[in-house]
Amino acid sequence: MSGLRGEHWLRGGGDPSGGESFMAIEARTQAPLPPTYRDATAAQVDTAATAASAVAAEFAATPAAVRASLLRALADGLGAAGDELLERVEAETALPPARVLAERGRTQDQLRQFAALLDDGSWVAAHLDRARPERQPQPKPDLRRMLVALGPVAVFGASNFPLAYSVAGGDTASALAAGCPVVVKGHPAHPGTSELVGRVIGAAVAATGLPPGVFALLHGRSHDVGAQLVRHPAITAVGFTGSHRGGRALFDLAAARPRPIPVFAEMGSMNPVFVLPVALARRGAAIAEQIAASATLAMGQFCTSPGLLLWVDGDGCAALQQRLREKIAATAPGVLVHPGIREGFEAALADVQRQPVEVLARAASAASPSVCPTLLGTSITDLLGTPRLRTEIYGPALLTAGAASADELLAVATALDGHLTATIHAEADDLPLARQLVAILQHKVGRIVWNGVPTGVEVCPSMVHGGPYPASTDARFSAVGTTAIARWTRPVCFQDLPAALLPPELQDGNPRGLWRTVDGAPGRH
Amino acid sequence: MSGLRGEHWLRGGGDPSGGESFMAIEARTQAPLPPTYRDATAAQVDTAATAASAVAAEFAATPAAVRASLLRALADGLGAAGDELLERVEAETALPPARVLAERGRTQDQLRQFAALLDDGSWVAAHLDRARPERQPQPKPDLRRMLVALGPVAVFGASNFPLAYSVAGGDTASALAAGCPVVVKGHPAHPGTSELVGRVIGAAVAATGLPPGVFALLHGRSHDVGAQLVRHPAITAVGFTGSHRGGRALFDLAAARPRPIPVFAEMGSMNPVFVLPVALARRGAAIAEQIAASATLAMGQFCTSPGLLLWVDGDGCAALQQRLREKIAATAPGVLVHPGIREGFEAALADVQRQPVEVLARAASAASPSVCPTLLGTSITDLLGTPRLRTEIYGPALLTAGAASADELLAVATALDGHLTATIHAEADDLPLARQLVAILQHKVGRIVWNGVPTGVEVCPSMVHGGPYPASTDARFSAVGTTAIARWTRPVCFQDLPAALLPPELQDGNPRGLWRTVDGAPGRH
Repeated sequence: MSGLRGEHWLRGGGDPSGGESFMAIEARTQAPLPPTYRDATAAQVDTAATAASAVAAEFAATPAAVRASLLRALADGLGAAGDELLERVEAETALPPARVLAERGRTQDQLRQFAALLDDGSWVAAHLDRARPERQPQPKPDLRRMLVALGPVAVFGASNFPLAYSVAGGDTASALAAGCPVVVKGHPAHPGTSELVGRVIGAAVAATGLPPGVFALLHGRSHDVGAQLVRHPAITAVGFTGSHRGGRALFDLAAARPRPIPVFAEMGSMNPVFVLPVALARRGAAIAEQIAASATLAMGQFCTSPGLLLWVDGDGCAALQQRLREKIAATAPGVLVHPGIREGFEAALADVQRQPVEVLARAASAASPSVCPTLLGTSITDLLGTPRLRTEIYGPALLTAGAASADELLAVATALDGHLTATIHAEADDLPLARQLVAILQHKVGRIVWNGVPTGVEVCPSMVHGGPYPASTDARFSAVGTTAIARWTRPVCFQDLPAALLPPELQDGNPRGLWRTVDGAPGRH
Repeated sequence: MSGLRGEHWLRGGGDPSGGESFMAIEARTQAPLPPTYRDATAAQVDTAATAASAVAAEFAATPAAVRASLLRALADGLGAAGDELLERVEAETALPPARVLAERGRTQDQLRQFAALLDDGSWVAAHLDRARPERQPQPKPDLRRMLVALGPVAVFGASNFPLAYSVAGGDTASALAAGCPVVVKGHPAHPGTSELVGRVIGAAVAATGLPPGVFALLHGRSHDVGAQLVRHPAITAVGFTGSHRGGRALFDLAAARPRPIPVFAEMGSMNPVFVLPVALARRGAAIAEQIAASATLAMGQFCTSPGLLLWVDGDGCAALQQRLREKIAATAPGVLVHPGIREGFEAALADVQRQPVEVLARAASAASPSVCPTLLGTSITDLLGTPRLRTEIYGPALLTAGAASADELLAVATALDGHLTATIHAEADDLPLARQLVAILQHKVGRIVWNGVPTGVEVCPSMVHGGPYPASTDARFSAVGTTAIARWTRPVCFQDLPAALLPPELQDGNPRGLWRTVDGAPGRH
């Protein structure tokens, strides 16, 4: 790897050609950052998607060990990309070096977790129901099913996780693990990061002996590039992390295709926090510190940043509010990952201030391009009556409201739309109310956090990152954790197929040693 | 149960009110069959959906044993409905008594299989990743996830399975098993069957002590009834079995909602059959008998009826064609389940005959309302060049074509759109070609059948009934078999939740004795 060249990754190599040109913006200085990138043309989109389709069956049929090697080579390659990659991420996003380093580690860890999933192999959910030729009145045939790859997946990189949810992020890792070729539409805010990572993936594909069609990266500032990709007949599924507007637009395009395809779009969330009375009385100020820190971590640019804090008025309430004001006012202004995010934050903040909302605290005024963490207050009545107040402000803003009673708190929970997470702060004496709240919230969110903060999404099989619309477009799947692989697969069933044609996952004798369900009984058999 | 009253099932009782009226048509005589039914009004749709929503959280939280009791009570109730039900099915559909009896048995069996799934409980896919407070640099929280019900499901009854895929069919059984209230839009071709079955479900709901909002049945001949239901904000998912036009219309409505919802529509298929050279030479005539019988079984009104038969020209080809002509010509004309199906069949047959197609055999001319099983022939070139020839003719029609070479046969397989099944007839010496075919077909269909017929869909965990579009709108799920429950669920994750608030499926000590994945290891722990 040496130097940026302003290239897509296409046909197994760099390609600088294209249409309209653009540059990244250095996040801290707002100065253009060379080199020049070009929007992929319709012909380039077609080249990438067609090449992906041409190798889809071959890639789906690769032994799991080959795909595991690919993912490990990619993880190693990200490490080997060294400072050039880390520095470019920092320049393009203004994320601090420690965070960038940690995010690279997480990205590598995700890739290795999927490699381990492939080594284990049981994720294919093999089911065998063996023949019973003697059954009356009809003999029972032999039926065996497993998950197989859907086909080429279009991945849209997120701006807030330039490594972990971008070119080699969770969507790409899970799709490649499933055996799906990937065409990434890079986020235009970090094209240099994308180019460097795309080159690492391309090198890993080649080093693993796989055909180049397995991976392509296309740059584009115009929405047309992504739209052409989602509309392309060869694309079979879409992964997206970003704004509601963007995710919904892609969902609508995909649904309107002659052959509709699934879209998993993760579109953000307010991640409401509920502070119950006993917890409020005992540790209101401590909760305020935790939540203020979580809400302003990375300048509120996590999908799981808490944006709404609710409590029942009573003991501890003044202490909580006081500490929130102090903490938010004391939080340094900061730079958001790109100008579009900053403009969006400022516009949303201005819009919300036209609603019945009070600014309770704001960090010292900031020099552009920095923005100020902001604490807002409203009433439960206004929150219930104003849908705008129940939708996300992406960035470091926290809206707060105190309920007059537990019933009022439950009413707010009931009025909520879908979110990624909800957090409950409670003590043992709060359990009766907490039980009611959990019963409501489990139908509103993908994850319920107890006495903690929603930020910090553990990458493990039990994680659910996704939630009822508008948090995501398909709450039946998670974008984080190894179960994310299921988004890019479908079951196929073989009836009476001879042993010679069965994949090893479904053969008698279980040559891969998988956990399978045989005649209804799960086991390693 | 006594007598038909022309009623919806709403608010736990019969409701004869509504808008436009209609009657069933006795399939054999085409005479109107009393009583009169009325299209559900928008207000009735709202009542049903709102009542379902009001009890959704309560129903989702019922112990699995309660839902298992409901399903068993329903299965028993279908048996107790006795001859009145069976005779009404026969009158409304012209299906022969033996088939109706067998279908009732299958419907009861499906319900009991889901009850057994609930007894076992492992279907919730519980994952536990336990806390590791000592982990560096961040402690690992305790995370536990399981599947929970989505909410109210709208089910559209199919006309070809008036019991097994209608009011108490596979979609209703799987949705109730998941803990989702169900609102059925009954098929207007069998309103009497629907009324009787709806009453059985209503009685089972009451007998199980569940609130009436758990189930409603609405009649409607107008598409408006279904459209209002799918658009209703309280509905969270849709199950449909029927025509491509109907399924796609519901899919489009659901995708265009402010809050889109998943639609599992199973929309039919040509179910291509491939006869490989050695099998053709050895048993061409026998294969012809099997496939002709499968294609005309129940007058071709199975989703899995074979509609396309392909071979490589060579030994046995003349014998296969000859026997096909004899068998189809000798198959008695029959009555289709309702006039709309007959009109659709006749229109499709007329349309196909405007393409480069030859009628090779047809049963003796039939008196209305019977239709004639029909054998059609075309060339591979015309099949590849005429998309109309690669789409379903619903009813007893079989299109055939001989390929000049194995490569030409593979080219047809590659050109196919999504189908529910594909069938391969082959001998050991055909394995090299069969291997190539399986590699292609597994990306085209949900189930590959070897040396058999696609009709006769076994209800078991390994079954996949669903396939790439246009066979179904979401190939990631199956409509048949116990895995169908996954369509109506989503995962929810609890982070650090106290034991007192965890559902039994996720508690330490595994009180329900489920197969779970704990810290990555599956087992009954």
